[in-house]
Amino acid sequence: MSHTIEKKGKILQRVRRIRGQVEAIERALAEERSCGDVLQQIAAIRGAVNGLMTEVIEDHIRFHIVDPSTDSDVDRARGAAELIEVIHSYLK
Amino acid sequence: MSHTIEKKGKILQRVRRIRGQVEAIERALAEERSCGDVLQQIAAIRGAVNGLMTEVIEDHIRFHIVDPSTDSDVDRARGAAELIEVIHSYLK
Amino acid sequence: MSHTIEKKGKILQRVRRIRGQVEAIERALAEERSCGDVLQQIAAIRGAVNGLMTEVIEDHIRFHIVDPSTDSDVDRARGAAELIEVIHSYLK
Amino acid sequence: MSHTIEKKGKILQRVRRIRGQVEAIERALAEERSCGDVLQQIAAIRGAVNGLMTEVIEDHIRFHIVDPSTDSDVDRARGAAELIEVIHSYLK
Repeated sequence: MSHTIEKKGKILQRVRRIRGQVEAIERALAEERSCGDVLQQIAAIRGAVNGLMTEVIEDHIRFHIVDPSTDSDVDRARGAAELIEVIHSYLK
Repeated sequence: MSHTIEKKGKILQRVRRIRGQVEAIERALAEERSCGDVLQQIAAIRGAVNGLMTEVIEDHIRFHIVDPSTDSDVDRARGAAELIEVIHSYLK
Repeated sequence: MSHTIEKKGKILQRVRRIRGQVEAIERALAEERSCGDVLQQIAAIRGAVNGLMTEVIEDHIRFHIVDPSTDSDVDRARGAAELIEVIHSYLK
Repeated sequence: MSHTIEKKGKILQRVRRIRGQVEAIERALAEERSCGDVLQQIAAIRGAVNGLMTEVIEDHIRFHIVDPSTDSDVDRARGAAELIEVIHSYLK
């Protein structure tokens, strides 16, 4: 069973929040609000998508590849922990 | 009248396509499809958001600040053209 | 006279710091330090490059296109201020 | 032996190219060249840093965590292959 299934609820919540942000831009355009607002809303969506990707990649590593908190192979566990750490700093 | 109003149709189309991509991830999660698919779908959304931001920023420059194709101030027009060019290469 | 000339000192300082960071990776590789370090150093350079680009773009807007703090055209000044704001949030 | 050691030569070459690009910006500033050039050079460095990160992360996965081309665990190998693929599309 994939982590996206096990953690479906949490990830779905993030995805729905992003959908809500996209729908908010549709409304802002329909209501002809200032493009300063639209620009900031797009920037916020990109941030949310990066957050979603970071979470799904971390879960993917832990669930499908190596879970640093449980793997008996010390080197491999450290390698996975280092990867998760750099994904967080690089995708933020 | 803001460029987001004048070009509403075109921008709204991009935004709706992004909404469609987000909804596709909701379905992929609901249908418990492989997270390899979900990972690629998220990457595609980030690309689409970057594309949307690039277009809205370019329109914002042309409509609200300086349109390189019509501005009589040569230096200012070249400055705006250089900015549009680097936005395209940096946000892709 | 271009902003990169007028503000050369400040920008050059940033660029030299980035060169220092790149040279630090060369040393880390030569000294065969852990790749966890190298990964974080690369992430730090990408952050510094984004910071450099944000500063040069803002200066480019103020110097070559429209300075929101001095331009007599209110709409154009607000448009430039909105653009500078979204560049800061999007490129960070 | 870490992949950064084993593949030192190749990674060092990439890092030195990036250093060369940074030094080129120092020269462009010293020679007071147009900021259009400087903007594009910064964008090129950010692209090169993303390329470097992608290569070091892929090597990190293959060398320290799971090499999809040799690992006997089919699920884990596929998980690693999917991760490498999304890193390439997300960091480009």
